[in-house]
Amino acid sequence: MIAGIIGAAGYAGSELVRLLAGHPRIDRLVLGSVSRGGERIEEIYPNFWGKISAPLVSPGEVIAAAVQSGGVHAGVVFAALPHGVGEPYAKACVEQGVSFIDLSADFRFGDDEAAYTAWYGKAYQYPELRRRSVYGLPELYRNRIRELAAAGPVIIGNPGCYPTAASLGIFPALARGLAALDGAGPGIIVDAASGISGGGREPARAYHFPECADSVSPYKIGEHRHTPEISRNLGAMRPLTAAGLGPVKPGSPVPVIFTPHLVPMNRGILSTIYIPLAGAWKSAGMDSVQPQPEETGEKLQEIRKIYAEFYRDEPFVRVLPAGTVAATGRVRHSNFCDISVHADRRGTTLIVISAIDNMVKGAAGQAVQNMNILLGFEESDGLGAIPALF
Amino acid sequence: MIAGIIGAAGYAGSELVRLLAGHPRIDRLVLGSVSRGGERIEEIYPNFWGKISAPLVSPGEVIAAAVQSGGVHAGVVFAALPHGVGEPYAKACVEQGVSFIDLSADFRFGDDEAAYTAWYGKAYQYPELRRRSVYGLPELYRNRIRELAAAGPVIIGNPGCYPTAASLGIFPALARGLAALDGAGPGIIVDAASGISGGGREPARAYHFPECADSVSPYKIGEHRHTPEISRNLGAMRPLTAAGLGPVKPGSPVPVIFTPHLVPMNRGILSTIYIPLAGAWKSAGMDSVQPQPEETGEKLQEIRKIYAEFYRDEPFVRVLPAGTVAATGRVRHSNFCDISVHADRRGTTLIVISAIDNMVKGAAGQAVQNMNILLGFEESDGLGAIPALF
Amino acid sequence: MIAGIIGAAGYAGSELVRLLAGHPRIDRLVLGSVSRGGERIEEIYPNFWGKISAPLVSPGEVIAAAVQSGGVHAGVVFAALPHGVGEPYAKACVEQGVSFIDLSADFRFGDDEAAYTAWYGKAYQYPELRRRSVYGLPELYRNRIRELAAAGPVIIGNPGCYPTAASLGIFPALARGLAALDGAGPGIIVDAASGISGGGREPARAYHFPECADSVSPYKIGEHRHTPEISRNLGAMRPLTAAGLGPVKPGSPVPVIFTPHLVPMNRGILSTIYIPLAGAWKSAGMDSVQPQPEETGEKLQEIRKIYAEFYRDEPFVRVLPAGTVAATGRVRHSNFCDISVHADRRGTTLIVISAIDNMVKGAAGQAVQNMNILLGFEESDGLGAIPALF
Amino acid sequence: MIAGIIGAAGYAGSELVRLLAGHPRIDRLVLGSVSRGGERIEEIYPNFWGKISAPLVSPGEVIAAAVQSGGVHAGVVFAALPHGVGEPYAKACVEQGVSFIDLSADFRFGDDEAAYTAWYGKAYQYPELRRRSVYGLPELYRNRIRELAAAGPVIIGNPGCYPTAASLGIFPALARGLAALDGAGPGIIVDAASGISGGGREPARAYHFPECADSVSPYKIGEHRHTPEISRNLGAMRPLTAAGLGPVKPGSPVPVIFTPHLVPMNRGILSTIYIPLAGAWKSAGMDSVQPQPEETGEKLQEIRKIYAEFYRDEPFVRVLPAGTVAATGRVRHSNFCDISVHADRRGTTLIVISAIDNMVKGAAGQAVQNMNILLGFEESDGLGAIPALF
Repeated sequence: MIAGIIGAAGYAGSELVRLLAGHPRIDRLVLGSVSRGGERIEEIYPNFWGKISAPLVSPGEVIAAAVQSGGVHAGVVFAALPHGVGEPYAKACVEQGVSFIDLSADFRFGDDEAAYTAWYGKAYQYPELRRRSVYGLPELYRNRIRELAAAGPVIIGNPGCYPTAASLGIFPALARGLAALDGAGPGIIVDAASGISGGGREPARAYHFPECADSVSPYKIGEHRHTPEISRNLGAMRPLTAAGLGPVKPGSPVPVIFTPHLVPMNRGILSTIYIPLAGAWKSAGMDSVQPQPEETGEKLQEIRKIYAEFYRDEPFVRVLPAGTVAATGRVRHSNFCDISVHADRRGTTLIVISAIDNMVKGAAGQAVQNMNILLGFEESDGLGAIPALF
Repeated sequence: MIAGIIGAAGYAGSELVRLLAGHPRIDRLVLGSVSRGGERIEEIYPNFWGKISAPLVSPGEVIAAAVQSGGVHAGVVFAALPHGVGEPYAKACVEQGVSFIDLSADFRFGDDEAAYTAWYGKAYQYPELRRRSVYGLPELYRNRIRELAAAGPVIIGNPGCYPTAASLGIFPALARGLAALDGAGPGIIVDAASGISGGGREPARAYHFPECADSVSPYKIGEHRHTPEISRNLGAMRPLTAAGLGPVKPGSPVPVIFTPHLVPMNRGILSTIYIPLAGAWKSAGMDSVQPQPEETGEKLQEIRKIYAEFYRDEPFVRVLPAGTVAATGRVRHSNFCDISVHADRRGTTLIVISAIDNMVKGAAGQAVQNMNILLGFEESDGLGAIPALF
Repeated sequence: MIAGIIGAAGYAGSELVRLLAGHPRIDRLVLGSVSRGGERIEEIYPNFWGKISAPLVSPGEVIAAAVQSGGVHAGVVFAALPHGVGEPYAKACVEQGVSFIDLSADFRFGDDEAAYTAWYGKAYQYPELRRRSVYGLPELYRNRIRELAAAGPVIIGNPGCYPTAASLGIFPALARGLAALDGAGPGIIVDAASGISGGGREPARAYHFPECADSVSPYKIGEHRHTPEISRNLGAMRPLTAAGLGPVKPGSPVPVIFTPHLVPMNRGILSTIYIPLAGAWKSAGMDSVQPQPEETGEKLQEIRKIYAEFYRDEPFVRVLPAGTVAATGRVRHSNFCDISVHADRRGTTLIVISAIDNMVKGAAGQAVQNMNILLGFEESDGLGAIPALF
Repeated sequence: MIAGIIGAAGYAGSELVRLLAGHPRIDRLVLGSVSRGGERIEEIYPNFWGKISAPLVSPGEVIAAAVQSGGVHAGVVFAALPHGVGEPYAKACVEQGVSFIDLSADFRFGDDEAAYTAWYGKAYQYPELRRRSVYGLPELYRNRIRELAAAGPVIIGNPGCYPTAASLGIFPALARGLAALDGAGPGIIVDAASGISGGGREPARAYHFPECADSVSPYKIGEHRHTPEISRNLGAMRPLTAAGLGPVKPGSPVPVIFTPHLVPMNRGILSTIYIPLAGAWKSAGMDSVQPQPEETGEKLQEIRKIYAEFYRDEPFVRVLPAGTVAATGRVRHSNFCDISVHADRRGTTLIVISAIDNMVKGAAGQAVQNMNILLGFEESDGLGAIPALF
């Protein structure tokens, strides 16, 4: 089995290289770059010396190699490119029977070109490609990926890093009716932190060490492009719940407030998610300023069970036991999403913490997970890394 | 003028030493420690070599030196001690005519011993001391400090680091009626991050470099002791607003959700504060997933003006212009609280970012500011440090 | 095949757990602790949740499990304990036919109890155990390990982290006669930097985040315990060279100057090694202050070839090409030792940079490598991690 | 008194702004930039909001303002520009009677244009300017600065950051005859580490957070441009010693091996300096591998006294007592150079650790110190910051 990577010289691309080089079902990697063809991957990433040695070829050569590997699903092409660049490659792939896993936002919005255009400022080049595309959050769309794959080559829109962490933290609450989404309140708030690698490999002021080390900086408040992606995910989670969750139409985007922060660490995304609890799940009101009552603790225990049960068969979601709080340092270099479940002092709001490695479950690892589903491999193939504490 | 410091060997104490050693009105520092008497400050803090050289004496000797410095307000004693330890020193000071600035929580709750006991697990030792005590957030209680000082020695309960950043970020919104606090919603959410120095000088697992570097960790979710302090501050801010802000009685604590995070940086506290906007300040509803409309921007501009106006005469609050987001790295080593004002995409929620240096405006600097007010100095004496970017 | 780990709760122990849990030839792990028996590894290291779940048992139970696994070399016991504690366990193992891989210094000095006692302040408990022990630097003693293993159970004294990086950087220079060791000069200087995890899991002032972040601190100058270990390694490398290298007797310790520094990073050891070049390898003297002449570059190229040739068949030593400088960030989480070869401006001194991950090649990884040699596995089994750049 | 700064938008320039804004003798700052004229300093450095507010003007306007401030020494111009750019500004200044303090390398080499050209690849534009220039290491050239200033405007070549730390650590050893510089050995080795701010404000791969955080990287081994500057300083220190120190002519450059490393911290330079001890100062030889003998300790104590005595009257050099090792974290934001004195185990080599804040004593602070000397102020005016531990 051949895997091709277009955009191998960037951070997400190089993580794909690292993960796929150790994948038991991939026999050959073909690495490509739009602008750095001719260079070698081990010169760009000297950490690969002695393990991976390959030239960067053109995107066309990557696709050609994958095509020549045989029929549908004998090869696959990944693209880790800027938004708005990869559609022609996607088109070439599916036309020649090869699936395409895209780490940009180009295939994350499906039919909803309007949303894509509103936030990314571009039109779809080949709208019809969305007929074969699916949003690659396996916990939500695993079956859809398989369905599409049964019918031919597939385009997977690999989720953004923030939307992955946020959505997995919120999914059980929506699916199991824990959330009060009556439209009046602020709804769900996702306060998130990212390691600096999320900014990519290109040097820039915001990622210059002296400007970001020893500081924490919120950015793009109220206007980050991952907001509509999270909103759409939340909408898709709602049909699973009982009818009557509120005025928002099943399937339509659920408003969310999303605030990202840059934190001086290499990797990781942490979401601190505030979900208003539905009536039955609220503790009795407490007006005075007292510590958290027992009642909250008991309801929380039940909610924790619901979360654990919800993700019981998921290979990459760990619902942590009471007393352990999710933190980015514990999922380092792994494909895990850690989730811990808490409440505010008064028991009005569910506070979910979710943590992922932004480059693995937030990008390349999830892409490999999608490939595994797509090609019928074990879902955890090549993703067995045990997180190191540091 | 003599300043004495009990607890000079801890981080907050050593910051007091650093700031007071450069204070133009303090002629003499007397440094004390409960447990390390006999050691020298420059041996415990070699960074002080050649600038500050002094033995640590007993708390009694610190108080005696301050007392001998002359009448009321000729000396002052600071205490940077664990909670529940300093009351006897406070008593000894005020009985002998010396003001006492306490960096623990012991005098932050005034008459409300019940709240203190509920969260700190201790009773007041000398409840009557609260008759001469005041909560030392100068922006809120500056005049009260002066009133008390006119009548004799004062005890100042210096605020916690998180409550300082959170309260300053919320104050104008409450005082100017921007917030909808109808009791139904989650109310105000304070999502905060702290540098590791907030944990003090005693080594512990959570602050051990390999456990906290390169990771972000929420902690004490729903149960951090600064929650009731913030709630009380918010209550005190409400009387300034027009009547009818909601069901909460003016002056009574305002519920708040507070989630602290540990971030791998030395100093700094950042609060990301979510305040539901009152009707007039909301943008018209937007259900679809679109970028922030102009309307939101215009209302925001007005709110920013209100904030700027509100803090116009404050020497240590900087309301940043549009386009600049508060970050801890820009207040480093200074007594500034930086505030930037934003909104969510739909214009339903005011998002305020406030940033302080946790050891300066969040502890020692604010204590010096309180001393300046108390003793009739220029409020910025000794606090002129220009923040370094790194 | 069973592997037992005594001291699994420390940092080195937990790295052994992480590596051995992914080892293709180890069927079962038995984890032990001297002081934390009864706790579970996944509670102490929540990063292991869902991957590794095991109670910590007593050292005796660890040994018993390994013994019951079958004859010689059907099981193995690792010990990651403080110095001076593990000899009884080593004795129990070898007496019952099980090999013992010790990460403390207790078996690094072989017959030379005097050196051990001089630096570690303890006597050997069972000196006779050294008859079956070998210093576990595979690049130097691989064959000796095999010889001993052929005759029964073996005790391996796993090298220190600094000595591993330093020795591998110096080995080819001594073995190929590049170094001038005439005894008159300062000899070889090893200036080294370590990440904070080298200090272990126990919190202490020196590893407290605010004390070590954003600073670099030399320590134990002229008196670090790894000095005699490096000296002894260098002595052992000399017999490989032509006769007449200088006054130091072949095999006797070679004096070395070793200065360790603490650097604010999680992992990694970097050695900057200064080796006086032997006459033939020196460039012609240059007294004026000019940039490096071409001649130096040419000799350097030859030396680089010698180094590359020397380590050609080593699975874990990477001699980097000209233009690439070894750095700790490129060996992260891998068992590699990266080496780059340079010279001073005048061409008098060979400057070798070597970099390892202190917890892997500097501790647990090398221990696994030793186990692989000992038990006849592929030397790289379980050690295939491709370094991530961050 | 007016101070003008050309190049105020860079890191060194902004540190000049920060320090001079708090200088008691500077009444007015005029900030200039070659390429960013028209922008405001508080927009480029939002940390300055509310403290410093000024437009960036052209270099010509900076000079004109300084000229108009009155006669010689009524104004001064600083330049923090790339190498090879500032000579015309220097010329304009001195011709109009204004002194010029240059933070580039252009005036560090005095008459020795050959050395400058060999390392910086440029010729002098106005060689004759060197008649009024002096190397601005106050501890070595304080009197020379005063002499020149008595005769008219002066050009000061402010030292490089590495040369400052290295030279101050070596100066007493050369001046007091502690060093054996017979030309045969490698001579003096300076192994140094720098915080990332040393690379300036322009984003680049090497300073991109994910590439440099959590790693230590040597660079420009054997070819860093600060090498000849250190060599020249050492030569200048030699005439102070007794005759016959070796074959190198008094005053001629002393060869030095210099290896810089990039360390993940914001600020600071640490030099670990290896100086071969002259015969009388060596301990008796020790061939066996034993810990450091008492004799070494005694000689070291004497050497420490010599160092302390040597710098007794220096306001910014702190020779630390036995038991304390210099570290960058203890000079943070101050103009101090901390020095601690050690030896190798065998007592053959003096190991000196020197630590500075690279942006203060290594750049802007030293420039202010030079200005103070030049203009007859107190040498410590504006440089009184007490180092914070973090």
